[in-house]
Amino acid sequence: MSADPDEASLAWAYLSRVVEPPSAAVAELVAECGPVEAAARVKGGVVSRAEARRAVDEAARDLDVLRNRGGRLITPDEDEWPHLAFAGFNGFTAGDLKKKPEGRAPLVLWALGPAHLDEVTMRSAAIVGTRACTPYGEHVAADLAAGLVERDVAVISGGAYGIDGVAHRATLSGDGVTVAVLAGGIDIPYPSGHSALLHRIAASGLLITEYPPGVRPARHRFLTRNRLVAALSGATVVVEAGLRSGAANTAAWAKMLGRVVCAVPGPVTSAASAGTHELLRGEAILVTRAAEIVEIVGRAGELADGPAHPVTPLDGLGEAESLVYEALPGRGVRTVEQIAIASGLVPEQVLAPLAMLEIAGLVRREDGCWGIVRQVT
Amino acid sequence: MSADPDEASLAWAYLSRVVEPPSAAVAELVAECGPVEAAARVKGGVVSRAEARRAVDEAARDLDVLRNRGGRLITPDEDEWPHLAFAGFNGFTAGDLKKKPEGRAPLVLWALGPAHLDEVTMRSAAIVGTRACTPYGEHVAADLAAGLVERDVAVISGGAYGIDGVAHRATLSGDGVTVAVLAGGIDIPYPSGHSALLHRIAASGLLITEYPPGVRPARHRFLTRNRLVAALSGATVVVEAGLRSGAANTAAWAKMLGRVVCAVPGPVTSAASAGTHELLRGEAILVTRAAEIVEIVGRAGELADGPAHPVTPLDGLGEAESLVYEALPGRGVRTVEQIAIASGLVPEQVLAPLAMLEIAGLVRREDGCWGIVRQVT
Repeated sequence: MSADPDEASLAWAYLSRVVEPPSAAVAELVAECGPVEAAARVKGGVVSRAEARRAVDEAARDLDVLRNRGGRLITPDEDEWPHLAFAGFNGFTAGDLKKKPEGRAPLVLWALGPAHLDEVTMRSAAIVGTRACTPYGEHVAADLAAGLVERDVAVISGGAYGIDGVAHRATLSGDGVTVAVLAGGIDIPYPSGHSALLHRIAASGLLITEYPPGVRPARHRFLTRNRLVAALSGATVVVEAGLRSGAANTAAWAKMLGRVVCAVPGPVTSAASAGTHELLRGEAILVTRAAEIVEIVGRAGELADGPAHPVTPLDGLGEAESLVYEALPGRGVRTVEQIAIASGLVPEQVLAPLAMLEIAGLVRREDGCWGIVRQVT
Repeated sequence: MSADPDEASLAWAYLSRVVEPPSAAVAELVAECGPVEAAARVKGGVVSRAEARRAVDEAARDLDVLRNRGGRLITPDEDEWPHLAFAGFNGFTAGDLKKKPEGRAPLVLWALGPAHLDEVTMRSAAIVGTRACTPYGEHVAADLAAGLVERDVAVISGGAYGIDGVAHRATLSGDGVTVAVLAGGIDIPYPSGHSALLHRIAASGLLITEYPPGVRPARHRFLTRNRLVAALSGATVVVEAGLRSGAANTAAWAKMLGRVVCAVPGPVTSAASAGTHELLRGEAILVTRAAEIVEIVGRAGELADGPAHPVTPLDGLGEAESLVYEALPGRGVRTVEQIAIASGLVPEQVLAPLAMLEIAGLVRREDGCWGIVRQVT
């Protein structure tokens, strides 16, 4: 952003405020004739939804607010614009858009922070969840975020209290890149209790929003914002969500965008996990560890190790060894003939397995009889 | 069972012990020439696996033990034989049987208890899990079993400590029918700490086993037994399971038998839920309530109610009402003109929504301005 904003920036800024974004009418106009001409035409009254605000041009002031904070406007003309991440919106049908009119890329993004938006989206996951999270949810969100940082995955979230805040904080603690997508202007720290956190995010990661400065977050803007969290993330991971949760809305956007929805299970007795369990009864993928998320958002072949299954010395036994071993008493010893009857083998078939088991240290001989060697566990 | 066992019963009892069940050779012989002739031929030495035990005929004594306890032998000739439940084994290919030679119906079942086995399997679910369960697992297993009882579903399990025992007990507490499938003889209460529980199950439900009296449970018999738990159940529900758990083995049998595998999630921080989460990352269906199990094992159309999603008065608002409502300040009031700018609507478009919202009790008028009515929550 130069000291004197250029005509295009002023036009983008004007268009960003004149109709509640995202606006199909404004987007089509820009696609048709570019931002400068589009702004001129909107001022002239061609877009009916702009009627209330078309005479209000706060573009210069808005850009000033942005510049004073060290922010920038990311437009589709910039190298940083995440074309690939937003390409998912191209798949929305007329039917989808009828149900979800906001199902389109943003016009422009107001941004603050050193991270490069397009690069961030190449390896990113959203961690989202309820504001009313439990200590369990906090623990899991922090653990997943820390694991993603270790594996160079950026963590995207909504900056809210609860799971979002934990995910952002854990990412910052691990010196990872985190992006908060806001539901209001970049100059409106919301929630106010997260002012310091948002400031830290802006210092090392990125704060972005499609709303111009001064716009206050509102109910509908949180839902509209959620589509950007989903779009900018390779997968959306819901950690804890009640049955009525914004996280479920973000998950729905991710699904519409063709992204993977993951969810972390919790106790079925916890209301804070009821929404994640509902997702998992649908198409969401259950995840328990960061490595399982990286399998989805990482490079092809970047697979999680399977969980380590405990093994015992008895695992490798063949059928005959196993039958013989099980035919030995828990305490004391038995003769070869007794072992044969108990195992269903003839005495000659019992001797070789007993020798193998003795070599393996699993059985012992005592006065011509056999007993098991207790394993230290 | 009459005072003097008939020839057929003696033959079944003999065949049940002479080779470790289930035996393909014995089953084929019985299919070919019936139990009496099959027993005679086995005594004559036609089945090599019977070599160690063919001279040992304890049939009369075994039937005596059974009769003294009030039990009965359930053979494929009895009305009570669960033909449909065992039909799943017909689908096993030669390849399946190579990996799992025990993948076949039992030859005969030793049974104790008033329940009718075939009827029980028409509406049944297995609840299985780790012996090393947590209080969470105990709570959930008891809750699910109680819910199944209320809906007339029989609860099948393995009589073990931990989840199995909790499921049996909760079913008995609710006066439901529960079946324990044992890995040893009907006269061997195992684990011994469950003697009283197994006695209670036999008094109102059913104890069954394919092993003749006196046979002690063994490692391989638990795994072989698990296939019967799966086969007798419309669905297998794993409540808590470590990564190495018999419950995962029962689930594998259920899957091979074409039955539904369900699993209850838990905290990802709990080792006792690691096995259920692994199942849920595969093909298992996540369940949180008994009603969701009944959807699977019950009659067609016996559907669980969806979880009750909380609603608020704002849910029903149209787009204009919603924009107007959100344009009102959290505290204090605004003029129609201010509302128009904030909402992006023209003043004329704001009045009708305000009137609707006033009727709904969501906004109030004050000196020509408008403010929101705080909802009591």
